[in-house]
Amino acid sequence: MWLQREIELRARPRGFHLVTDEVVRALPELRELGVGLCHLFIRHTSASLTLNENASPDVRRDFATWFDHAVPEDFAWTHTLEGPDDMPAHIKAALLGPSLSLPVSRGRLALGTWQGVYLCEHRDRGGSRTVLATLQGE
Amino acid sequence: MWLQREIELRARPRGFHLVTDEVVRALPELRELGVGLCHLFIRHTSASLTLNENASPDVRRDFATWFDHAVPEDFAWTHTLEGPDDMPAHIKAALLGPSLSLPVSRGRLALGTWQGVYLCEHRDRGGSRTVLATLQGE
Amino acid sequence: MWLQREIELRARPRGFHLVTDEVVRALPELRELGVGLCHLFIRHTSASLTLNENASPDVRRDFATWFDHAVPEDFAWTHTLEGPDDMPAHIKAALLGPSLSLPVSRGRLALGTWQGVYLCEHRDRGGSRTVLATLQGE
Repeated sequence: MWLQREIELRARPRGFHLVTDEVVRALPELRELGVGLCHLFIRHTSASLTLNENASPDVRRDFATWFDHAVPEDFAWTHTLEGPDDMPAHIKAALLGPSLSLPVSRGRLALGTWQGVYLCEHRDRGGSRTVLATLQGE
Repeated sequence: MWLQREIELRARPRGFHLVTDEVVRALPELRELGVGLCHLFIRHTSASLTLNENASPDVRRDFATWFDHAVPEDFAWTHTLEGPDDMPAHIKAALLGPSLSLPVSRGRLALGTWQGVYLCEHRDRGGSRTVLATLQGE
Repeated sequence: MWLQREIELRARPRGFHLVTDEVVRALPELRELGVGLCHLFIRHTSASLTLNENASPDVRRDFATWFDHAVPEDFAWTHTLEGPDDMPAHIKAALLGPSLSLPVSRGRLALGTWQGVYLCEHRDRGGSRTVLATLQGE
């Protein structure tokens, strides 16, 4: 079985946001898969997807603090036309990556107890973000 | 062909560990695939999987040194409840990622000569780690 | 449908290089896929693949500047046998990752408007690089 669907994630402020439930709700066909893979792909270069701790908001805040520190706006950037948050957003997006490939078992994402899907919004005003989901399996 | 299997990796100290042989041994069905993909997924948020140089232990030691330097314990973390190694572990895990998708050709992982699978253990006492392997191909 | 093909990318100087067209040209079978995935895997430990902004060369230059700053040659490396650019290349390769999994829709890579495939060459003289492409879909 192959299925592809665009998932529109509403605009969120710069930061790290837990979107597991939103993604799962958009893919009811997950339930039909005994074994498979769920590929999530964000079609942008200044936002990314990652997987991390799904419980404490502190963790997501600390993600923001560290990434802003490691990839600062005040740096020797030459590509500054689109604002001070643009070039750091590109680097952060590449560090975390545009896609997630998640195993599916018995009709569910086979995540660990503490794993959740993060939308990593690296722009101040990134707007809504499109994720293309590709489901396959049997 | 689809196959899914949990691989339990024994507890290892904080650092970068070569586990290619262990993973391959756990997946004898690799030999049945002419072409395919082997998806490895670690079900944790403070350990990760990556691919790098499979020869020199110096390389793996230098990985540890750099990551400890880039994501230090002494930082403006707010999520400190689970110890000083916890929040850096989450960030390192996200930077390296929870999964690897490896091509399979003629019954083997089609890695380059120098490539090996690293288990990246970011906690001081992470315990054993579960990897969910999903094999597909024909 | 499964297809696997090696793509040889010619030697390029250290830096970030847009190779989308080269990759697509090497995979004419993409056109036969209504839905699928294109997995690109670089068989090296000192070069990597990522996806980012496909328009401005400034962006790719800024990638180089930031990565050279974040993973400097002048550091407490112990693995220095293969030159000062070697160990930083390994770390950068791990941060960006050896593979990309790209969705295919209606015969084309389903990239966002601004997304392009980067070959990230982290060595001064890395030579040509081999990418193993695995196409699947229907």
